[in-house]
Amino acid sequence: MSTHAPPRRHALSPLFTPSSVAVIGASSDPDRIGGRVLRFLIESGFKGQLHPVNRSGATEIQGLKAYAHMSDVPGQVDQAIVLTPVNGVEAAVRDSIAKGVECVLILTAGFAEIGAEGRALQDRLRDMCRAAGVRMVGPNSLGILNLANRYFATFSTVLYGLQPQLGRIALATQSGAFGSCAYGMASLRGMGFSQIVATGNEADVDVAECIDYFADDPDTDVICAALESCRDGHRLRAALLKAAHAGKPVLVMKVGRTELGAAAASTHTGSLAGNDAAFDTVFAECGAMRPDSIEAMLDIAYFISVTGQLPVNEDMGVVTGSGGIGVLMADHAGEWGISMSPLSASGQEAALALLPFAVAANPLDMTAQVTSVPGGVGRTIEVMLQHGQYGTVMAYLAHSGLAPSRFAPTLAQLRDLRARYPEKNLVLVMLSTPEVDQQLAQIGIPCFGDPTRAMAALAGAVRIAQRRQNLYALPQSPAPAAASLGDVSTEALAKQALGEAGLPMLRERLCANATAAAEAARELGFPLVAKIASPDILHKTEVGGVMLNLQDEQAVRDAFSTLMQRARDAMPHARLDGVLLAPMVKGGVEAILGVQVDPTFGPLILFGAGGTAVELYRDVALASAPLNPTRARALIEQVHASALLKGWRGAQALDLNALVNALCALSDFAWQHAHELDSIDINPMVVMAQGAVCLDAVITRKVAP
Amino acid sequence: MSTHAPPRRHALSPLFTPSSVAVIGASSDPDRIGGRVLRFLIESGFKGQLHPVNRSGATEIQGLKAYAHMSDVPGQVDQAIVLTPVNGVEAAVRDSIAKGVECVLILTAGFAEIGAEGRALQDRLRDMCRAAGVRMVGPNSLGILNLANRYFATFSTVLYGLQPQLGRIALATQSGAFGSCAYGMASLRGMGFSQIVATGNEADVDVAECIDYFADDPDTDVICAALESCRDGHRLRAALLKAAHAGKPVLVMKVGRTELGAAAASTHTGSLAGNDAAFDTVFAECGAMRPDSIEAMLDIAYFISVTGQLPVNEDMGVVTGSGGIGVLMADHAGEWGISMSPLSASGQEAALALLPFAVAANPLDMTAQVTSVPGGVGRTIEVMLQHGQYGTVMAYLAHSGLAPSRFAPTLAQLRDLRARYPEKNLVLVMLSTPEVDQQLAQIGIPCFGDPTRAMAALAGAVRIAQRRQNLYALPQSPAPAAASLGDVSTEALAKQALGEAGLPMLRERLCANATAAAEAARELGFPLVAKIASPDILHKTEVGGVMLNLQDEQAVRDAFSTLMQRARDAMPHARLDGVLLAPMVKGGVEAILGVQVDPTFGPLILFGAGGTAVELYRDVALASAPLNPTRARALIEQVHASALLKGWRGAQALDLNALVNALCALSDFAWQHAHELDSIDINPMVVMAQGAVCLDAVITRKVAP
Repeated sequence: MSTHAPPRRHALSPLFTPSSVAVIGASSDPDRIGGRVLRFLIESGFKGQLHPVNRSGATEIQGLKAYAHMSDVPGQVDQAIVLTPVNGVEAAVRDSIAKGVECVLILTAGFAEIGAEGRALQDRLRDMCRAAGVRMVGPNSLGILNLANRYFATFSTVLYGLQPQLGRIALATQSGAFGSCAYGMASLRGMGFSQIVATGNEADVDVAECIDYFADDPDTDVICAALESCRDGHRLRAALLKAAHAGKPVLVMKVGRTELGAAAASTHTGSLAGNDAAFDTVFAECGAMRPDSIEAMLDIAYFISVTGQLPVNEDMGVVTGSGGIGVLMADHAGEWGISMSPLSASGQEAALALLPFAVAANPLDMTAQVTSVPGGVGRTIEVMLQHGQYGTVMAYLAHSGLAPSRFAPTLAQLRDLRARYPEKNLVLVMLSTPEVDQQLAQIGIPCFGDPTRAMAALAGAVRIAQRRQNLYALPQSPAPAAASLGDVSTEALAKQALGEAGLPMLRERLCANATAAAEAARELGFPLVAKIASPDILHKTEVGGVMLNLQDEQAVRDAFSTLMQRARDAMPHARLDGVLLAPMVKGGVEAILGVQVDPTFGPLILFGAGGTAVELYRDVALASAPLNPTRARALIEQVHASALLKGWRGAQALDLNALVNALCALSDFAWQHAHELDSIDINPMVVMAQGAVCLDAVITRKVAP
Repeated sequence: MSTHAPPRRHALSPLFTPSSVAVIGASSDPDRIGGRVLRFLIESGFKGQLHPVNRSGATEIQGLKAYAHMSDVPGQVDQAIVLTPVNGVEAAVRDSIAKGVECVLILTAGFAEIGAEGRALQDRLRDMCRAAGVRMVGPNSLGILNLANRYFATFSTVLYGLQPQLGRIALATQSGAFGSCAYGMASLRGMGFSQIVATGNEADVDVAECIDYFADDPDTDVICAALESCRDGHRLRAALLKAAHAGKPVLVMKVGRTELGAAAASTHTGSLAGNDAAFDTVFAECGAMRPDSIEAMLDIAYFISVTGQLPVNEDMGVVTGSGGIGVLMADHAGEWGISMSPLSASGQEAALALLPFAVAANPLDMTAQVTSVPGGVGRTIEVMLQHGQYGTVMAYLAHSGLAPSRFAPTLAQLRDLRARYPEKNLVLVMLSTPEVDQQLAQIGIPCFGDPTRAMAALAGAVRIAQRRQNLYALPQSPAPAAASLGDVSTEALAKQALGEAGLPMLRERLCANATAAAEAARELGFPLVAKIASPDILHKTEVGGVMLNLQDEQAVRDAFSTLMQRARDAMPHARLDGVLLAPMVKGGVEAILGVQVDPTFGPLILFGAGGTAVELYRDVALASAPLNPTRARALIEQVHASALLKGWRGAQALDLNALVNALCALSDFAWQHAHELDSIDINPMVVMAQGAVCLDAVITRKVAP
C-alpha cells in the first residue's frame, strides 16, 4: 500500500490529532454521558492536554483541573468537545470560537434529526463556525477514535466491553449506531482501526471529507465508510478518486438499496431516497467497492489490510486437502468473476513428483498423502506459487490452525514462501485460534474459517483492482451552466435539438394536414411511419398514436385523419401540431439511450438494449457524464443484452461505433444542459449493420424549484 | 417441531445406536488412526460394549480386553468398525458377517476413489453385505458421531480440538472433509449436533437414506446434508419429502453449481457433473433449502433449531435503536422476499404512548429515549408482537449482550414475551457473549451479531415454510416403461407424436416436390411458411432452411427449389424428405417448452418465454414430471418473462390455459416415454390470445448404453 505523504496539514488534522482539548459539559460521574467521554480520554492514555469545562464551578473533575468557562482555560485549545444539554450548545460553541479553537466536536443530539426548530439551531451553529473559520463535526455525532495517538473522544458504551485495537483500517460513518456495530463486530474478531469518526448530522464535516483526510493519513491503508445520504456528489467523487489514486481501497456501504429499504430510509430520515443506482455507478467509477453487509465489508478490509496489496490479477490457484471444499471454492469463483487457469504441465509434474496420488490440477487436491511427506503442505503451496500466473493462491487446510504448536512448522514455511513470492497473495482457509490468525496476519496471510467468505473477500479485492484500471476523470466543476436548452417540449423539437447535438435522426416531416402529409410522403418514399405530434402527448402508443408500414399516399392520408381523431378522442384538450412522417426502419436491434440528471451526482447516461428485456430484466447500466468513447464502450459492455449487437447466434454484427458516437453526443448534450435538464429518453434507437437512428425522443426539463 | 415417532426400528438403527461394537484394526497407540477411534469411543463415555480386535494377539488394547479374531468376541455384536489396511478389509467384513453383525462401518480408504481395482474390491464388499442382509457404511467413511448416546466412531482429528456438543441438528455428508469443516465451524460457535455421519463412497448406505433415518430420529429437529452426487434420485426425493412431512427442515448443500465448479468436480470425482439445475428443482419441490455456504447452512439450522418452529408467515416487524441498521434490514427484506407491513394505527399509538420520540413505523426506531423508560426495550418489542400479524419480530439491540448482568432484566422480559406469544418468532441482532447467546437459545430466541446474517437465516426459514405449502407428490415408481416411442427422428414425426399426445399443432403438409407443395398450399391458404424436412438437419435456420410469409402458389414453388438447393449445398449427405408447409402464425408471444430426462431424477419439464431472453438471461424454470395444472401454473410463474403472457404494458392477456394444457400433455408424454427419451425441445410454441401452437419440435432418444 503506498503511503502518500500529505504535502501540508489537512483541514481536518485538528479533529483527529489535537494537542489540547476542552470537554465542555464534562461530568464527574464516569458512567454518565458527560463523564464517560472524559473517562475514556483519561483511560486511553491520550498524551495531549485535557481541560474539563463545567459551569457547576467544580475545580476538579475525574482528577483533572476543571474550569467553569472556556475563557478560564489556560493556553491554546485546538478542539472543543461539546456535551452540554442542547440548550447550552450555542453558548458552548460561541465560547469555543472566542477561545480560538480550530474545531468543535458536537456530541449533543436534538438538532435537525428532530425537526425544524432543531434544524434552525443547527444552521446557526454551522454559520457561526463558518464565519469564524472553525470546523465542526456533528451535531449528533458519536465522536472520534484515533487509535494511533489514543484520542478516544466518544461516549459509546461499546468501549466498555471492547477495548479498541490499533490497526490500519479507518472508518467514517454518518450513523453512530452503524459505526458502533461495525466497530464491535470488528473488535470481537480481533481487527483494529487507525481512526473512526461518526459525522452525525454533517452540518459541516461529512463522510466524503473524512475519506479525503484518510487518503492522506499515513496510519491508514484501507478506508471503510457508511453513508445514509450525500449532500455533495462532487466532493464524494473527488474523495473516492483521491483515495484510489493514493492506492487506498475504499469500502463504502450505503443503505436504501431496495424499494423496501428506500421506504424505510425515507421514514427514518424524513427525506426522499435518492437514486440508489447512481451511488452504485459513482462508487464503481471512482474505484470504490460497495459490500453487501457489514461483515462482508470487514472481511474485505481484513483481507486487503493483511495482504497489504490488491491481487495482481483475477486468476486463482487452489490447494486443498478436500475435493469437496475445492469444488465449493470453484463454484464461487465462477459466480464472482475469479478465473482458475489450469495447472501448467510443469506444475502438474512438480505436484506429482511430490505427491504421486495428488489430483494435479486446479484445484490441486493434496489428498491424505500430504501428511506423510515432510513439509508437504508448504511444498505443495509452493508448486502453485511457482508454476502458473496465479495472482492469488488459496489453500484449504481444514482445522490445522486449531493446534498452534503442530502448525508451527507450516507457519515457518509460509513465512518463507511469502518472502520469496512477495507479489502473489496467499490466503488460508482453515479453523484456527486467534493466536495463529495473528501470526499469519503478521506475515501478510489472511485466514478465514468459512471458504465462502474467503472467496467473497478475494472477489471484493479483485473488483477494486479492476476498477482502478478505469477510473473516472473528474471534471473541474460539478456541472457547467452553458448554452440554453430552448424549447424541447415536443418530439419534433427534442429530435431537432438532439440531431443538432450529433445524434443520428431520420429525415422526418411534421405535417399540419393530410395534403401536406401526402406531399411529404412522395418526397420521403415508402414505407412510412406516421405518429401524432403534440406537446401534450408523451406516450403516443397508449393513445393509438403511431401507425406503421404505410405503403402509399392514400394510406398516409387515411393515417393522418385516423391519428388526429384518435388523439382528439383520447385527450380532447391536447394541443395537436399534426402528424410526424418518417421512413420505416426495418431490422437492427432496439436500444434505449437516456439521461437522468441526479440531484447529487449530476447527469448520468443510461444505456439498455433489446426492447422489452430492458424493462423485464432491468438490464440497463449507468455512467456519469461526460463520456468518452472508451467509457461509452465500457457502458455498453455492462449490459447483458449488448450480446445482441455483436452478432448474436450467427446474426450480423451491428454498428457499435455509431452507438458509441451517439452515447458520447448525448453525454455532451446532457453535460452542457445539466442545469436545465431533468431527463432524456431516446426509446428506441435502432442500431443497424451500418449506422443507428433515434426513432423517438422525449426531453423533460427540471421543474423550477 | 413435531417429533414423529418411528413405527418400527429403522434399518439404520444399528448404525447410530449399537449396543455392542467391535473395532477391527484397533491399535494401542491412541494417536494413530487405528487407536484414535478406540480412544474417542472410550473418552466419549459410550455406554455400549467395546471389543478391540487386532490380529497381533494383544490381550488388552487401551485398557480393554482385546481379541485376535472376530470369532473370539463373546456374545452378540451389532456393528463392526473396520480400520484395517485395505488388504485386510475383505476378511474383516467376511468375519463380521460370520459373527452376525447387523452393519459394518468401513473407515479404511483406497477403494473406488482410487481406480478400477479399488472399485472392484468395493463392489465385492457390497455384494457380500447385501447377500448377508448386512448394512454397510463407506468405505472411505470418516465415521459416525451420535451425541445422544455418546457413540463417537471416527478418527477425525477435529475432535482433538473441539469437543462435540449435544444439539438437535443432524448432519449427513458424503465427504468427510466437508463434514469436519461444518462440524468445526459449528463447534467454534457453540452449536451442537444430534448425529453426524460421513457416508464416504456410499457403496450401500447413502446420504438419502440417512436423511430418511433422521426424519424418524426423535433426537433430531433439523437436518443438514452435503452431497457431491446422487445415485438414486427417487430415494433422495422420498427422503426429503418424508422429512418435510415430519416437520423437519432439510438444508442441503450440493457443490458443482457453476461451470467452473462443475469442471472442478469432474476433475475431483472423475465423473461428469450431473445437471445442477435438476438438484435445485428437486430440492425446492421436496421442501428442502439449498444454502449458498456452509456458514449460511449453519445460520439457518441454528435459527430453526432455536426457534423450534418455522415462521408462520413472511411478514416481519423490526424494532431498532438505529435507523441505519433498520434500513439495512429492510434492504435485505426487499431482496429476499420478506415483507414488512406498516405498523397498524393501534401499534403506532401504543409505540408513541411508550416513547413519544419514537419513529412509530416499521422499522420501529426506539431512539435513545428507550434507555430512560423502565423496561423500554421489552415493552417496545411487545408492541410489535401484539399489533400486526408479523410472524417474526426482529430487534436490533446494538451491543447490549456484551454486558450479561445489565442485560438480565431485558432477558427476563423476553422470556415472558416468548411465553405469551408462542406462535411468533423473536430474533435478536446484537453483539453478545456466548453466555447470553445460550440463555437466549434456551428461551427460543436466536441471536446474530451481523444484521445481514440474521436476515439471511430468516429468509431461509421462510423459504422452507413456503416450499412446504407445495410439496411434490411422489409417484409410486421412479419411471414407468410403457408405450413405445416409435420413429420421431424428423420434425414431422416428432410433431405428429406430440400432436397425438395432445399438444396443439398447425395443419402442416410434408411435400415431396414443388407440384405437391403448390397443391397443399391451395388447400392450406396463405400466407405460409416452408421449412426443409430432413432427419439429418436439426437446426434448420443455420442452413437457411426456413422461408417465411409465402403469399402465393408461385412463391411456394420457388421456395421448394430454393430450400432443397440450400440444404444440398450446406449438407450434401443429408437425407431430404422434401419441404414442410404450414400456415404462418402472426402475433402472440414465443415460449419454449422442453423435456430433459435427467439420469438421476428422470423427466424434468422446462419452460421459458420471450424468445432471445430465454437464452440471454437463462430465464427458464424446471419442474419434475408428472405435472398437474397447478404445478404447471407454478412453473410458468417462476419465469420472469411470463409477465409478457399476462398483458404486458397494456397488451392483451394471452391464453395461459392453453399453455398449461400443453405443459401437462408434454409432461404426460415424457413420463410415459422416459425410458426411451433423452430430450424434447419445442421451440417456439406461440401463445396467442386464444390457443397456442407448436411451431417446431425436436425429440432426441436416449443413446443406447
